[in-house]
This record gives sequence, C-alpha cells and structure tokens, in this order.
Amino acid sequence: MLLDQTRLPAEEAEFVCTDVPALVRAIRTLAVRGAPLLGIAGAYGVALAAVRGDDVAESAGLLERARPTAVNLGYGVRRAAAAYREAIGKGADPERAAAVALAEARALHREDAEASGRMAGYGLALLDELLPGGGGHRLLTHCNTGALVSGGEGTAFAVALGAHREGRLRRLWVDETRPLLQGARLTAYEAARNGMPYSLLTDNAAGSLFAAGEVDAVLIGADRIAADGSVANKVGSYPLAVLAKYHHVPFIVVAPTTTVDLDTADGASIVVEQRPGAEVTEFTSLQVGVVGADAGGLLVAPVGTTAYNPAFDVTPPELVTAIVTEEGTISPVTGVGLTELCARSSQVTIS
Amino acid sequence: MLLDQTRLPAEEAEFVCTDVPALVRAIRTLAVRGAPLLGIAGAYGVALAAVRGDDVAESAGLLERARPTAVNLGYGVRRAAAAYREAIGKGADPERAAAVALAEARALHREDAEASGRMAGYGLALLDELLPGGGGHRLLTHCNTGALVSGGEGTAFAVALGAHREGRLRRLWVDETRPLLQGARLTAYEAARNGMPYSLLTDNAAGSLFAAGEVDAVLIGADRIAADGSVANKVGSYPLAVLAKYHHVPFIVVAPTTTVDLDTADGASIVVEQRPGAEVTEFTSLQVGVVGADAGGLLVAPVGTTAYNPAFDVTPPELVTAIVTEEGTISPVTGVGLTELCARSSQVTIS
Repeated sequence: MLLDQTRLPAEEAEFVCTDVPALVRAIRTLAVRGAPLLGIAGAYGVALAAVRGDDVAESAGLLERARPTAVNLGYGVRRAAAAYREAIGKGADPERAAAVALAEARALHREDAEASGRMAGYGLALLDELLPGGGGHRLLTHCNTGALVSGGEGTAFAVALGAHREGRLRRLWVDETRPLLQGARLTAYEAARNGMPYSLLTDNAAGSLFAAGEVDAVLIGADRIAADGSVANKVGSYPLAVLAKYHHVPFIVVAPTTTVDLDTADGASIVVEQRPGAEVTEFTSLQVGVVGADAGGLLVAPVGTTAYNPAFDVTPPELVTAIVTEEGTISPVTGVGLTELCARSSQVTIS
Repeated sequence: MLLDQTRLPAEEAEFVCTDVPALVRAIRTLAVRGAPLLGIAGAYGVALAAVRGDDVAESAGLLERARPTAVNLGYGVRRAAAAYREAIGKGADPERAAAVALAEARALHREDAEASGRMAGYGLALLDELLPGGGGHRLLTHCNTGALVSGGEGTAFAVALGAHREGRLRRLWVDETRPLLQGARLTAYEAARNGMPYSLLTDNAAGSLFAAGEVDAVLIGADRIAADGSVANKVGSYPLAVLAKYHHVPFIVVAPTTTVDLDTADGASIVVEQRPGAEVTEFTSLQVGVVGADAGGLLVAPVGTTAYNPAFDVTPPELVTAIVTEEGTISPVTGVGLTELCARSSQVTIS
C-alpha cells in the first residue's frame, strides 16, 4: 500500500498494489518515486511476488527495469531477490523463502530510516562548519527529498528539517521542479506539515536569489552517484550547481551509500531517462492531482510540438562541494574518497 | 484591437480596448506584452484617450504605470503625449491634436518594424562572425521575442527566423519560460507558424543541453538596459547567462535602442516587478488559455504557500557577449559603447 504521490497535495490517497505489474505501473507513473523509496518499494515488490507464488526472478527483472536511472531500485530488488534465492538454495519451501524476502525488505526499510537520521546529523555538522555565522541558514532545494522518498525523513530535506528543529533554518527556498512539480506539490507539502519557513519559486528564479545573496547553501539528493563522484539527480540540479559555483555558495549532495554505483565509472556512463514530451507540452493530472487521471492533459504548446525532456542531469564532482552519506561526508569529492566511504558502509552488498 | 496573447496558442482571439482603463487591464493581464510592443500599445493608448476626449496627461500616467520594468512602455507613452501637447501648444484643436498623436503612434509602430529588420541583419552578421562553422546554428531562446512583441518580426526571435530563412538554423531550443509559459505558448506558436525546427524544454533542462554541447548561442531580448549595459529581461535569463559563461557559449541580447535607459545607472537601479504568487502556486487561464478566465486556478502547491515571483532578472554586462540593436552591435558591452550607440539612434528622443 503506497501513498499515491500523484494526488498530493490535493489529497492523501492510497495506491494498493496486489501484484508486481501494478507496482511497476505505480513506479512508472510516479505514484511512488524518490531514489531510496524506490529501493524499498522494489524490495517489497519482490516479497509480494514471492508471497503470491509468482516467478520471483521474472518479477525482479520487471521491477528493476521500471525506471533506469535510480540505482537504489535495482539494489533493493536484487537484495530481496538474493535473500529469496538463498533461502530456496538452503532448502526452504517457497512460503518460508517469501517470508525471508519480506524480512529483507523490512530490514532495508529500517536501515534506510536509520541512514536518514545519520545523514541529517552529518549534514547539520557540515552546515555548521561551512556557514559559521549566526542568523540561520537560507537553504535552496530542488525536487523532493523528504519523508516521501525515504523510510525515514529523507536525504537533503532531512538536513533542512534538522536545521529547522534546532532553530537554525531561516528560509527553505523550494524550487517548483518542472515538469512534474515535485517541489511545489511534495516538498512544499512536507515543509508546510513541519511548520518550516519556506517559499516556492519557479526553477528559473533561483538565479535572482543567488545574485541577491539570498542563498547560503544548496542541498539536493541524488538518483545515482558514479564512481568518480558525478551526481545524477532531477533535471535542474546541474544549473543550480553552476550557479552555486559562480556565486561561491556550497552545493551539497545528500544521499545514502546505496545511491553510489561504483560500477558506473563516470558521469558520461550514467543512463539518463528521457520522459514523454507531453509532460512539458501539457498540464496533466500528474501536475494538478485534482484532475481525473483519464481527463487527458491541457495543451500549453501548439499541437505537434516536440519536447526535450530528460528526467535527470549529471553534475560533475568539481561542482559538488560535499557528498553527505550515512557513513559520513566527503569533501572534496573524489573517486578514492567515495570508494573508501562505500567500503565503510555496513549495508549488505549484492554482487 | 489587440491579439489576446493570453488565449494563444489555443485560439487567436481579439481583445478590443475602447478606452485607456481597458488597455491598462490588457497590459497588466499580459493580453499585450513584450517590451517593444508595449511601447507601441502605449502610444496608441495615448492617441485613443485623445480621440475620445479623455484627459491625455492623466491617461498617459495610467499607462506608464501599468508595468514598471519595460522602459519602452514609458517611451511610447511619452512620445505620443509629447506630440499631442506640442500640437495643442501650436494652437491645434483637440481633434487635430488627437490625429497628431495617432500619427506619432503609427510612426513608432513603423519604426519598430524597420528596427526589427535591421536587428535581424546585424544579429545574423554577428552569428556568422562568432560561429564560423558550417552545420547550422543551434540557438537557445527564452520567453517570447517575435512578431508578438513587435511592430515587425521581433528582436531575438527575428535573428533566429532570419537564420532559418537562410537555411542556417539547425535547431531553435525554446525555454518554456515559467511561470507564464511565454516560450511554450507564444514562441513555439511563432516557430511552428514559420516552419522552423524547434524543440520545447523546461527552463531547468537548458543546463543539460549546454553540458552536451548542443547550444551554439543564446539569443534573448531585453525589457530595460541600464547605462552600464546591465540587462533586465524575463526571469530565467540570468541563469542562462551564467550557464553560457561557464560553457563558453555566446550570450547575445537583441533589443532596439528604445530599450536602453541611460537614466538608469546600473543593474542595481533597475526596478524589478514582483508578480502575484498565484502565478506559481496555481495553474490559471493565463497558462492554459482554454480555461475560462473566471474559472480560477488549479492549486499545485499546498494552500497558504507563499511564492517568490520576480518577473525579471538582471544580467550584468560582463556576462553579455554582445548587444545587438537597430543601430549596430556592441561587443564587449560597455557603458561608453552603449552611449555612443544611442547617440547614433535616429529615434526621436523625449526628455
């Protein structure tokens, strides 16, 4: 049972998946989204297939291919599938092996919640170090990285929330995050629920804030971090990194070590998902929630307009001030530092 | 009679202004917009007041204050009002003076069309110089700067259209231009009508194009150019300038000399219009045209969300490769160069 993120902030509706194809649809339509949460959902999906008596390997393959960029999805799927296979290999019957897969999904869920808390702690310590002045932090964030993407309170958003709880958040600047408005719909929803001081802006208005000296740090999440420290995240992250560099503002990436993919050598090797142009040329129920899913979109561009619509972009390590994980922070960002950090990770690794 | 730009691209509807308050409403709601066209509309508005026998000075004041950033609006209004006053001063009766004001508005309209053609010529020559390779240009533009903003074919868009007519436009990248989507609704409409190869993108996807080497030059218009060469233009222009600088891509501003305001010393002195937050927190008829104007907006953010919504941003001269006007091109952009260019201008100047 998922909270249907396509209906937020208008309504808190449940999305019930009784089989893996339904979960794949939920992932593709972004009813469930966000790198860490996709890993958890993927692991539960494998357990669901096992409990139903479906072909677990085939279901795992369907889930893993549902979206290409977030590394955590494949990680969660493989981890639950490996637990299932291992149990079967040791002579467990399918019912017992399904219980093992479900336990593995729950363990991942719990670990992610714990990782979230540790990232918030390391992130706050980093902000203290980088921004020693009083007055409180003015933090700019992009997309959604809070409780909606996590087993806990999230990644970048958890750091801002931690600052708020300690009375050190002066303003959270929330990029609306076109085309699907995860900032307006989801981050603003989480900020409002937590009583944080926040303002929404169009993505292209961030430049004015930087120019006016109104941004003390940028905090974003990540969908995949390559071995050289290149960060794939929601489209619009890279322009923020360039703006931050130009204005000497720290650009901080907060992500669990499960987001690091040492098998992807560099930024150029990261596969970036291209999404339908209609997300740009139409306003659909994905953006406004309240419109019925079958109502179709309202065209905002001439009929026949093609759109360039990459879901993510890639920020090279030289533009990233620091990467904060549950195992600690690396700054400057180097491939060696990242490898060491991942080696420290207590996460079960699946070959 | 105006083409109602809030209804495009869904329909080509006329907006009839029978008095100045109606025109002020048309300007405020962006039924008519774009720096040069606002000047023309303002001049016609003064003539309309004169023909109706309204108080011309008072009407001119209302028009001039309808929007604060575009310098051309005040220029057009003052020019027609001065022609009216001069005629009255020379003993003309109000009816005759109204005809003089109308003639002045028509002259401005004609001059703007001619200026458009000359800017296109200078802009094309500049592109030839900056981008000597074959293959055709890949130009990125923001907001709308075509026939819809001009007595002729526009400013930045006119250069891209000129390149297209000479077979040298490989791709026009069209920023959608949040919050009001002038790129998606208006520039895409003009590009489609002219058979140009174009693709629409969310503003925050431009970074990916720069990173991939897919942008040969950025072409934008201007709403006000200060004496030091600082350029106020639609919000989102400044981040493009920073991206262009970082990627060594020319950033070219195309605007008539009427856009230059030598009385505004520098970028910091430019008044930037702050527009209602609802443009960001709701989808309104302004964005989707087809929704009835009274239907209200669809909320995309939680109730009570405040938004930071500057209509413009300011790009400092060091980030501008060249300013192209109807009097020629200056590069590098300096206050001295700009003053000389304006002195060359054949436009009637109003103190």
